[in-house]
Amino acid sequence: MSTRLEAWGVVGLPEVVPGDQLGELIAEACRRAPNGPLADRDVVVVTQKIVSKAEGRLVEVDPDDPLSHKAVVESEAVRIVRRRGDLIITETEHGFICANNGVDLSNVQRGRAALLPKDSDRSARRVRDIIRARLGVEVGVIVSDTFGRPWRKGLTDVAIGVAGIAGVVDLRGTPDALGRTMQVTEVAVADELASAAELVMGKSSGIPVAIVRGADATWFRDASVRELVRPANEDLFR
Amino acid sequence: MSTRLEAWGVVGLPEVVPGDQLGELIAEACRRAPNGPLADRDVVVVTQKIVSKAEGRLVEVDPDDPLSHKAVVESEAVRIVRRRGDLIITETEHGFICANNGVDLSNVQRGRAALLPKDSDRSARRVRDIIRARLGVEVGVIVSDTFGRPWRKGLTDVAIGVAGIAGVVDLRGTPDALGRTMQVTEVAVADELASAAELVMGKSSGIPVAIVRGADATWFRDASVRELVRPANEDLFR
Repeated sequence: MSTRLEAWGVVGLPEVVPGDQLGELIAEACRRAPNGPLADRDVVVVTQKIVSKAEGRLVEVDPDDPLSHKAVVESEAVRIVRRRGDLIITETEHGFICANNGVDLSNVQRGRAALLPKDSDRSARRVRDIIRARLGVEVGVIVSDTFGRPWRKGLTDVAIGVAGIAGVVDLRGTPDALGRTMQVTEVAVADELASAAELVMGKSSGIPVAIVRGADATWFRDASVRELVRPANEDLFR
Repeated sequence: MSTRLEAWGVVGLPEVVPGDQLGELIAEACRRAPNGPLADRDVVVVTQKIVSKAEGRLVEVDPDDPLSHKAVVESEAVRIVRRRGDLIITETEHGFICANNGVDLSNVQRGRAALLPKDSDRSARRVRDIIRARLGVEVGVIVSDTFGRPWRKGLTDVAIGVAGIAGVVDLRGTPDALGRTMQVTEVAVADELASAAELVMGKSSGIPVAIVRGADATWFRDASVRELVRPANEDLFR
């Protein structure tokens, strides 16, 4: 595995509007970036918010009613998992379990809410393909979003779409440091990369893209975020 | 927030045995480290396994019975949360919800299982204090462990103890990039730092300590992992 990792935010991106090709904007910003150009096997982490904006995944909500997006949440959700007060935990059409079905009001124009991208793997692939075409480098791309956890406070960023980078790396059967065969070690590297990227993006600083350099070469492969979704028959907390 | 993060594994640590002072071993390894000396505001991430070994948190199990540690799990757990086949999800005395109460057989001598440290915040503080005394630098320390998630496949590293570094950073009320007041943004930075560190440690490479440089200056403060534990009255999945 890798022994050194670096992560930095991409500065200089314009405000994203529907119809933008994110790959073009990111390629252009990286070309001018003070941190130097993108390289093969960099991981480009793009927050869901700008993906949803670029893809026009915005719906109108009542700007004077802080709960008006809850109707959107209920109509978009595949399943209501839990509900308490204003908090709704749902299953999205992608199979993600999260608060408010991923519908979000922050960093979106007043009177609008952003839905999750319809197919975040496709969104990630599109960014990857454009960066390859424009800059001639082969990167992994992760679309990230900020999820809560049932038993831990605080939010962390996770992957909701991947292209060219593994969701989960399977280390089962690899001998541990004492030479014993390991029990279970499927590492969710895409989620850990998304979390590392979040640390340099910050929620309020308006940096929606980060680069992570130093991911292990073996993690780069065709992949889907479905690797990260636990199937219903393994879910003990439905 | 920070705009650049670096993480690397600490090489050259000896095999840890009960009675070792981890802070001494880490300080010594960092003094000789090819990545240069520790600096103020570095975060030292130490995996639970070597903390448990150093503190002698080992119990005997039947080396020929792959399930013999399950009796230990049941006697150590505060509460059995779910059970299916060999899988036991428990609540630990610290309030963590995890598989097997955190009891682990990998990277432990045959016939032994490692329990979680009794008080991981105290373990972290001890490492921090020794590093301060030996190297004259003020670092944050995170004791990390590898947990699963109920609805996502793959494991990620999270914090089970902290010293001098926040568990959760509260951004509620900070204006977002469009000047709107944000809704909820409590970021679990200690968990994200643990995940970033995991990416450079690797499960099978035997590197149990990593350094993360570039954490925001405001995250360094007195803290406890209790910040990261959701209280029972907020738990919708008991």
